[in-house]
Amino acid sequence: MRMYDVISHKRDGKVLSEEEIRFFVQEYTADRIPDYQASALLMAIYLKGMTPEETSILTSAMVQSGETEDLSMIQGIKADKHSTGGVGDKTTLAVIPIAAACGLKMAKMSGRGLGHTGGTLDKLESIPGYRIALSEQEFAHQVNTIGAAVIGQTRNLAPADKKMYALRDVTATVSSIPLIASSIMSKKLASGSDCILLDVKVGSGAFMKTVQEAQALAEMMVSIGWAHGKKTAALLTRMDTPLGHAVGNGVEVLEALQVLKGGGPEDLQQECVLLAAHLLHLSDEKRTLPECAAQAQNAIANGRALQKFYEMVTAQGGDVSVLQQEERFPQAPFERALLAQHDGYISAMDTEGIGISAMLLGAGRQKKEDSIDPTAGLLSLKKTGDFVRRGEPIARMYASDETLFDAAENTYRQALCFSAQPVDRPPLLIGYVSQKGTAFY
Amino acid sequence: MRMYDVISHKRDGKVLSEEEIRFFVQEYTADRIPDYQASALLMAIYLKGMTPEETSILTSAMVQSGETEDLSMIQGIKADKHSTGGVGDKTTLAVIPIAAACGLKMAKMSGRGLGHTGGTLDKLESIPGYRIALSEQEFAHQVNTIGAAVIGQTRNLAPADKKMYALRDVTATVSSIPLIASSIMSKKLASGSDCILLDVKVGSGAFMKTVQEAQALAEMMVSIGWAHGKKTAALLTRMDTPLGHAVGNGVEVLEALQVLKGGGPEDLQQECVLLAAHLLHLSDEKRTLPECAAQAQNAIANGRALQKFYEMVTAQGGDVSVLQQEERFPQAPFERALLAQHDGYISAMDTEGIGISAMLLGAGRQKKEDSIDPTAGLLSLKKTGDFVRRGEPIARMYASDETLFDAAENTYRQALCFSAQPVDRPPLLIGYVSQKGTAFY
Repeated sequence: MRMYDVISHKRDGKVLSEEEIRFFVQEYTADRIPDYQASALLMAIYLKGMTPEETSILTSAMVQSGETEDLSMIQGIKADKHSTGGVGDKTTLAVIPIAAACGLKMAKMSGRGLGHTGGTLDKLESIPGYRIALSEQEFAHQVNTIGAAVIGQTRNLAPADKKMYALRDVTATVSSIPLIASSIMSKKLASGSDCILLDVKVGSGAFMKTVQEAQALAEMMVSIGWAHGKKTAALLTRMDTPLGHAVGNGVEVLEALQVLKGGGPEDLQQECVLLAAHLLHLSDEKRTLPECAAQAQNAIANGRALQKFYEMVTAQGGDVSVLQQEERFPQAPFERALLAQHDGYISAMDTEGIGISAMLLGAGRQKKEDSIDPTAGLLSLKKTGDFVRRGEPIARMYASDETLFDAAENTYRQALCFSAQPVDRPPLLIGYVSQKGTAFY
Repeated sequence: MRMYDVISHKRDGKVLSEEEIRFFVQEYTADRIPDYQASALLMAIYLKGMTPEETSILTSAMVQSGETEDLSMIQGIKADKHSTGGVGDKTTLAVIPIAAACGLKMAKMSGRGLGHTGGTLDKLESIPGYRIALSEQEFAHQVNTIGAAVIGQTRNLAPADKKMYALRDVTATVSSIPLIASSIMSKKLASGSDCILLDVKVGSGAFMKTVQEAQALAEMMVSIGWAHGKKTAALLTRMDTPLGHAVGNGVEVLEALQVLKGGGPEDLQQECVLLAAHLLHLSDEKRTLPECAAQAQNAIANGRALQKFYEMVTAQGGDVSVLQQEERFPQAPFERALLAQHDGYISAMDTEGIGISAMLLGAGRQKKEDSIDPTAGLLSLKKTGDFVRRGEPIARMYASDETLFDAAENTYRQALCFSAQPVDRPPLLIGYVSQKGTAFY
């Protein structure tokens, strides 16, 4: 088999055979296919697409390119939740303890963020003492006893994906639905959970800008999951404003904590309950979605979800007292309030711009090597649809260096559109994608 | 400017700016853009196309990536003729002396062939003593006095094209009309002639398989030529059988010589006169095409074209006696006649297969490093439309090694289709592309 022929077949819009796809993934991972041939194929895939079957084979070949997690030491139904990424998305921090409180086994291996704000690991590390490195035995024991653990990824999962992603990143071939679907699903499948719930974000702060694209991506990922024997579903949720108010690391932990304590911003609360409910429904379809939602709400109301979070943090060495007495949580030395310059309704937010503003404060990484300031971040106090009066605070920023505020403020203000007319905030929930197809809310 | 953005613009079907195209060509030639980004762009160009303006800018940037020929030492109208390549295409050998006999200055720099048979240089070198290396002064003097010279290319013309072509060759991005057009025209424009006549071949022995593709390529090249101030036109000619009978190097020189002597196969004769006539018409539009054709035919009839060929060969050190007494022309030691195995009409020829058969005899290079046997080749005695009787010779093969015949014969026979019904040979001439558009014959 020659790589030249694989490229020319996809270039001509043909469906690649299983043999061709596996040949490409194996030989490219083994450095026997040069980058210039791989990038020509990736561009051809970008422009000509792949069928669900081709994408599923690609995913499977990527899983088999490396190690896979063995979660057999953990008893019960292992569930995983993945977000395609948004601004202020701290749902994992709340959903894990809620689902664990409802009996699921949340054995989460997570990565660091290379975006506007940190990943789940970076957020948890803003809790003093929190250890992300556990041995396999410690990890299994913690999940078996507490029901939840979040640690850093140590195994070499899907190296083909790492190599292809690095190449896609510099050849303008990232935003292809089959390539995104196979990249995400190869890592999820290699992580070994039984149930996978995907949260596919749509809008100005998300990778997918239209519902149509997000739906296509979600349907492809769900079909790949089932083709590999995993119970898989996806939510389509709106990311046209930050989720909740907090954007950063420590500030997001505190906001997730509010949800676990029964409060927090309504959109965040709603989404956390919905995600937990869908995970429960996915793990046992005999339970209806309303029953699952009631169970999740109950786990918050009776304090068991909060208790699970405390147990998990404590087990991983974190100082739980800073969660119990929030005034002791590490805080940035400097703060700036952004005041509205005129009256009006916020009509739209460039949510990615708000993420960049938080990054400029120190909450995210511009380059892989950058370090994160766990106390840096912002609260987006007024969001799309809100009326603001001149002089009223629209955001609050936190940083360890006062000189960072000006650029972050400029970026934040440029991300807002105002209108004299009332504007509705678009609803958070768009749709639900199961094996049976897509249902819109 | 970032290469990433250039790739993403073309990926999205946008028209690239002059700045973007020049950036890519300059930086890629200077090894500051990696192959994997270049190949992603080339695949995007392959699939999304380029406008004539983009292609013209690309061509111009490729010309400027290297040296250009300075023909200012040569007086008169300098004309050039280029074929996109076919099997048995020895027209250059005859057209150069015919056009020179009619007053044009044919200052031809040629390359070696990397195909089924050699290039024009390889063919001329089958004449004992012929020198392809002349100094610039010798070259200019010869063209000024005789009107014709064919030498090897010494300057580094269009290095961007060389680098891009090598990459396209391994990434399945060769057969793109804007990329072919810019590749051919960058070399023609860098060669410095005033008039450029292109012979775009269509059919089973050509790169372009359909008239539509060939027309698009020809129109693009003609428009690029005029955009660069060169009088440019193209013929569309059929390449569904070898041109003439001879396929090889020495055998093709002898067949071109027959044309110059007023004989030769009718198709070859017709095409040589037509090409010379179009060159004359292009150089001076006041002369009608029929007048130009009469002039070309006259140059053959009165022996002046043949005389020019002798003068050129003599001036470049070639032994003209082997042309005057053809029985002295170097011949292969072995010969095999292919006899028809049954009666029938030849209904089609896989002309590329016939080229490969000649290559297997030693007439062409499989790899760049291979040497050519000037005496090897074949005569395709019966062509599409001809009736053959069982036992009658359909081809004659020549080689320096008898063991080469079997494979060449098999390949040749597999290239023929027979029919019991009479079949018309498709006409040689398809169309003519000028600045005004395409006229079909």
